[in-house]
Amino acid sequence: MNTPETSGRRAVTATELFDRVEAILLKAGLHPVQAAAVTRVIVAAEADDCKSHGVYRIEGVLRTIEAGKVKADAEPALMPDEKPTIVRVNANGGFSNASFELGAPLLADRAKEYGMAALVINDCTHFAALWPEIEFLTALGVAAMAMCPSYATVAPAGGRYPLLGTNPFAFGWPRKNGNPYVFDFATSVVARGEVELLRRAGKKLPDGWAVDPDGQPTNDPEAALAGALLPFGGHKGSAISTMIELLAGIMIGDLTSSESLEQLGSTTLSPSHGELIIAFSPEAFADHRGRNPFSRAEALFEAIAGQGARLPSERRFAARANSEKHGLILDDTEFETLTRLEAASARR
Amino acid sequence: MNTPETSGRRAVTATELFDRVEAILLKAGLHPVQAAAVTRVIVAAEADDCKSHGVYRIEGVLRTIEAGKVKADAEPALMPDEKPTIVRVNANGGFSNASFELGAPLLADRAKEYGMAALVINDCTHFAALWPEIEFLTALGVAAMAMCPSYATVAPAGGRYPLLGTNPFAFGWPRKNGNPYVFDFATSVVARGEVELLRRAGKKLPDGWAVDPDGQPTNDPEAALAGALLPFGGHKGSAISTMIELLAGIMIGDLTSSESLEQLGSTTLSPSHGELIIAFSPEAFADHRGRNPFSRAEALFEAIAGQGARLPSERRFAARANSEKHGLILDDTEFETLTRLEAASARR
Repeated sequence: MNTPETSGRRAVTATELFDRVEAILLKAGLHPVQAAAVTRVIVAAEADDCKSHGVYRIEGVLRTIEAGKVKADAEPALMPDEKPTIVRVNANGGFSNASFELGAPLLADRAKEYGMAALVINDCTHFAALWPEIEFLTALGVAAMAMCPSYATVAPAGGRYPLLGTNPFAFGWPRKNGNPYVFDFATSVVARGEVELLRRAGKKLPDGWAVDPDGQPTNDPEAALAGALLPFGGHKGSAISTMIELLAGIMIGDLTSSESLEQLGSTTLSPSHGELIIAFSPEAFADHRGRNPFSRAEALFEAIAGQGARLPSERRFAARANSEKHGLILDDTEFETLTRLEAASARR
Repeated sequence: MNTPETSGRRAVTATELFDRVEAILLKAGLHPVQAAAVTRVIVAAEADDCKSHGVYRIEGVLRTIEAGKVKADAEPALMPDEKPTIVRVNANGGFSNASFELGAPLLADRAKEYGMAALVINDCTHFAALWPEIEFLTALGVAAMAMCPSYATVAPAGGRYPLLGTNPFAFGWPRKNGNPYVFDFATSVVARGEVELLRRAGKKLPDGWAVDPDGQPTNDPEAALAGALLPFGGHKGSAISTMIELLAGIMIGDLTSSESLEQLGSTTLSPSHGELIIAFSPEAFADHRGRNPFSRAEALFEAIAGQGARLPSERRFAARANSEKHGLILDDTEFETLTRLEAASARR
């Protein structure tokens, strides 16, 4: 990362990358609020060397638009209050990102006013990592938990068929100085993409990743892709993934992973479903207890790092520091992707 | 379980067991609201054949009282509202159970009124499984999530020293007919007690359970008990356990697992810390979405059970059905424990 000039890797400024990606998405017909919000995630991902949500994802976004599986011209709408702790945004079939940006400041305000609050995003096509959302909220001084279904690729522990999604679960805690405490992980052992990468490389899967179509453990990527991934942590991870289907699918009146796959008919486009984000005001919960929750949390983080364990997201934050110094590092393939998509845009 | 008469196992009615356990706890000086609430957990655990919180735990409760590590005569107090979504009960140094019983009905009401709400229990000595609390709330028609620290026996993933507790995480979803969907698990691979059992049996630990005092993986129970347990699911479980320290320890202004161990100086007594329970009104979250969350959840549960995977707590519910038919089944050792503790009570 410190030698961006080697092996076809070059730097680009965040502003330049933002402008290029946004222009491609606008040309593809994405509403300006959607284009800007999706672009922010892609640029943030590249800044953090988090390639799974970076430039390579642009084509998936375009494919999803072309397949008519997202309403490109949709504007998100804040729904009337039903309950004071539930901020609800309807994406109206657009990508989730602009809906998050519309609802998040209000979510933080409500959490501070009421102690805790939820942001429900409904009727969205989901293109997002959860950590940029968590970091947006921790920057506003609230702790936050986020979760959503995906599409069915994971069997429940002890089962045989895909029913659950890779269902990400994320959490963040604000830190007054520096980067927040943030984790964001799939509740499957791995993402489906990692199985696909091993298939292409002709490699075997490690034990415990997947079952074949008969529900038997398999190390064969083909059999795994025809069968199902497994949740992380056995029945415990499976239970958490099921909780996510219940809270962030069924409870919020939106699709489960199984329904999302049925509606989409493919695992190569962005899935449709909702998302649930819960925010907590640490000051409100700690009130009258006479101890500062933020300084106490620092002591906990020091005790973790001080024994050689890593805090989550450390790798991303190191990449971000590097990007701030040297620019965002893309490789030749990524630059070619941008140039090719720009040329295709110009022919529209 | 269907032949309670064999091998020293006999049935007792729930009422008889309740009366005998409550009398022992009252004689030990426990305030009536505490004695009744602790007894309810012990009887519920025996009814569900969940021996880890059953009759054998009475002596731990008595030891904790005798060591002065719980305020036996404390009455829990509902604290004045700071924020409408935070119901706060101070246990005043007593066992957590009576505090839960005081706050839980109000928690469910608040969740229905505001969409979601939290119950914070502070300054309690913790003797409880979380599932009885979750089931109390699901019976009131809300979904609920509960978590608490413990005492430091678990190293963070990649670490070497005990810092986290076995930090249980529990969740429940109400079902209109029959038992709720409930899970309740330690975020460590196993409970410390299981290591202790293998040590006594002279057996080795499976891989992945623990590290020795140098942070190296170990299969030796002695080395594990001198070292640290590991979180379930690697860095993911470690992150969830850390979240529990933050939300249900630090945020609520109560002890972390590390502080709790320091205060207690032992892992053989019940630890002091707080607890956080979050309740959600499914009706409120699903409002205006036109789909019944309860019937949709049933379809999800059927899809899990229909492919041969178990729903969590099935074993407990089967035991409960058996207990309802045949009474609660105790073995000779458990009956002897009751008789011995009653005799000791009579000598006070």
